[in-house]
Amino acid sequence: MKSRAAVAFEAGKPLQIVEIDVEPPRAGEVLVKITHTGVCHTDAFTLSGDDPEGIFPAVLGHEGAGVVVEVGAGVVALAPGDHVIPLYTAECRACKFCLSGKTNLCQKVRATQGKGLMPDASSRFSYQGQPIFHYMGCSTFSEYTVVNEISLAKINPAANHEQVCLLGCGVTTGLGAVKNTAKVKPGDTVAVFGLGGIGLAVIQGAKLARAGRIIGVDTNPGKFDLARTMGATDCVNPKDHAKPIQDVIVEMTDGGVEFSFECIGNVDVMRAALECCHKGWGESVIIGVAGAGQEIRTRPFQLVTGRVWRGSAFGGVRGRTELPGMVDDAMAGRIQLAPFVTHTLPLEKINEAFDLMHNGQSIRTVIHY
Amino acid sequence: MKSRAAVAFEAGKPLQIVEIDVEPPRAGEVLVKITHTGVCHTDAFTLSGDDPEGIFPAVLGHEGAGVVVEVGAGVVALAPGDHVIPLYTAECRACKFCLSGKTNLCQKVRATQGKGLMPDASSRFSYQGQPIFHYMGCSTFSEYTVVNEISLAKINPAANHEQVCLLGCGVTTGLGAVKNTAKVKPGDTVAVFGLGGIGLAVIQGAKLARAGRIIGVDTNPGKFDLARTMGATDCVNPKDHAKPIQDVIVEMTDGGVEFSFECIGNVDVMRAALECCHKGWGESVIIGVAGAGQEIRTRPFQLVTGRVWRGSAFGGVRGRTELPGMVDDAMAGRIQLAPFVTHTLPLEKINEAFDLMHNGQSIRTVIHY
Repeated sequence: MKSRAAVAFEAGKPLQIVEIDVEPPRAGEVLVKITHTGVCHTDAFTLSGDDPEGIFPAVLGHEGAGVVVEVGAGVVALAPGDHVIPLYTAECRACKFCLSGKTNLCQKVRATQGKGLMPDASSRFSYQGQPIFHYMGCSTFSEYTVVNEISLAKINPAANHEQVCLLGCGVTTGLGAVKNTAKVKPGDTVAVFGLGGIGLAVIQGAKLARAGRIIGVDTNPGKFDLARTMGATDCVNPKDHAKPIQDVIVEMTDGGVEFSFECIGNVDVMRAALECCHKGWGESVIIGVAGAGQEIRTRPFQLVTGRVWRGSAFGGVRGRTELPGMVDDAMAGRIQLAPFVTHTLPLEKINEAFDLMHNGQSIRTVIHY
Repeated sequence: MKSRAAVAFEAGKPLQIVEIDVEPPRAGEVLVKITHTGVCHTDAFTLSGDDPEGIFPAVLGHEGAGVVVEVGAGVVALAPGDHVIPLYTAECRACKFCLSGKTNLCQKVRATQGKGLMPDASSRFSYQGQPIFHYMGCSTFSEYTVVNEISLAKINPAANHEQVCLLGCGVTTGLGAVKNTAKVKPGDTVAVFGLGGIGLAVIQGAKLARAGRIIGVDTNPGKFDLARTMGATDCVNPKDHAKPIQDVIVEMTDGGVEFSFECIGNVDVMRAALECCHKGWGESVIIGVAGAGQEIRTRPFQLVTGRVWRGSAFGGVRGRTELPGMVDDAMAGRIQLAPFVTHTLPLEKINEAFDLMHNGQSIRTVIHY
C-alpha cells in the first residue's frame, strides 16, 4: 500500500515528504495507522549523522500513537481497530531479560531493530523500488508503519492520541526514571539537569513521588517558569555561579541531593549530577544519550563514599505491561501531558518541528497526519 | 606513659621501633593496650608517600585488637578490661549519617581524624617532646594507643585476638561489601578482581551468600589455590587472554555477572569490573583505593543499559553495632579467619611484614606485641 511519510534520505538534510510503499505485515507483525507522533531529540540526533548506529534512507520517529489496521500470521494480542503506542523497547515476556524481572531491556528483536530491519532481516518500506530502513522498531514518521506485535502497547481506545503519543518516549522515560530506577521517596531532595521534555517529566515524576525539594538546573532561564509549574521548588542557572554547579547544589542542600537526573546527554553534566549527590547515599541516574565515543569520568572516591551511579532507558518501563495503566493515569489527570505539547503541526511541516526544538522554542511538537 | 611503637617518621622510609610517650585519654577517649595488629595495604600506601592525606611523623596501623586500660571522662560504653577492636569508621549514633540508616560513614570525628588528630585537635603521642600524629583514628602500631569511645567495638573477651584483629579492616570490608553493599543472592554469579586479603574475603562472603559461581581474577596465578579453597569456582588470569578481561568474563558467563568487586585500587580494573557486569542488572562495587587524582571512566551507555556502579567503605558495616556479632560468627566458625593469617611476627620485625606483602608472599601478617 501507499503511505505518506517524512523520509530521512540523508544525514544532515531535511526530511522529505513523499509517498512510500508499505508491505503487509508478516508473521508476528502488525500494520498500524499512526495518528500522531512527537518529534524527539533522538530523532534529531540520528538525523544529524552523529548517531553511529544511524542508517539512511530511513523512516524516523518513535514517539507515536495509532490504530491497528491489519495483523500478520500468529498475532494474538492485537486485532484491527485496537489503539496502540509503538514501543522502541519491546516486551516479549519470554527472553532472559524479560523473565529476569530486573530490567525492561527486552532483547528479542534488539539485533535486527538496531540494523533498521524487521526480525526476518528485511524492510517493509520502499520508495521507487529501493528499500528504506525502519527506525527503533517504530518509524512513526510514516502514516502507515509495520511494527512487531511485541513492540505495541494496547491502550484505552478513548485516549487522546495527541497527548498520549508522548508516553511512547519522553514523558514515560522521565516519570519511569523517578519511579522505577531511582525509586524517589517522600521528602527526598532531587536535582534535575536539563529542563527539556525529559527533565520536565522527571520533575513531574518527583512531584508525584512527593519529593520535598526539586531543583531544576538549566543554562536557559527561559525554561524555569514551566519547570516551576511542573513542580520545581528551585531553579538554578550554572552560568550565574563562579563555582562548579555540583558545589552550588551541595551547599544549598546541606550536603547534596538524594537523587539527581541527567536529562541532556552531556558527559560533563553527568559528572556534575553524580557529584552533587549526598555522601553516603545519593544516587545519580543518567537518562541523556551522549555522543559516540564520549566517556563519563569521576574520582572513584565519589563512589567509595557512598554515591551510586546508574542509568535508565525508557524509564525502566515494560511497555506492554505498564503503558496501558499510564494512559489511564493520563486520562484521569494523575499524569499531566498537555503542558508538554507546546506545538502541533501537520506532517508536511515536520521540519519546522526540528527547528522549534533546536531553537529551544518547543517542549514537544506533535505531528498529526 | 611509655609505649613501644613502630613510627613512620618519614614517607618512603622503614618504620622505626622506638619508645614513645602516650598521654592519658581525655573526655570521650579510651586508652587501649593493643595485643595484635594486621598490616594492610592502606598502611603501605600511606607510608609510601602516595597518599595525599598522609602526614608524618605518625603511628600507622588500623587493623587491631586489644584491651581497654583506662577510660576518659564521660565514657560510658566501655570500662577497663573490655576487649575491643578499633574502628577507622566511627559510629556515633547521633550524626546525620548514623541517623540516616543508609550508610556507615559516620562523620562525627571525620575532620580531625583526617588530620591525624583527636577531636580536640591535639595528639596523644609524642617522641622526644615532638608530637606524633595519629592515623585513621586507630594507630595500632603502638602498644598503647588512645582511641575515641565511638571508634571502639566491644567484643567477646574470649575471642582470639590474633584472628579477630583482621575484622578491623580487610575481612570485614570484603564480607560486608558482599552482604551490605551488593546484597548478593543465592545463585548469583560474582567476579572478584584482585585476590589479596580483601578479594579473598569477598570470595568467602560470596560463598556464605550462596553465590552460584565465583570467578577470581588475578594476574598472579599463585593466588588461585587459596582462592579456590575459599570458594572460587573459576580462576582467570587476564594475561592468559588476548582480549580484554571484561569480554572474557562476559563470554564465560553468557552475558556477564550479577556482581563484580574491584579489590585492587586500579582505575582500569575498575572499568573492566563494571563492564563485565550483565546488561540490565549487573552491579559493580569498588572497594580498592585508587591513587591520588586518578579517575574512573566508561561510556555512559554502560549505565543506561542497566549496569550500576557503586562503592563500599568498610563493607558498609557499622562497627560498634555489627562487629561484635561478626566476632561471634568467627568464634563459631561461620566466618573463617585463620586462612588469612599467613604470617605472624613480633613488633620488632614489622618492616618484614611490609616486605612480605609487597612481594605477594603473604595474605596478612599479624604483628603481636
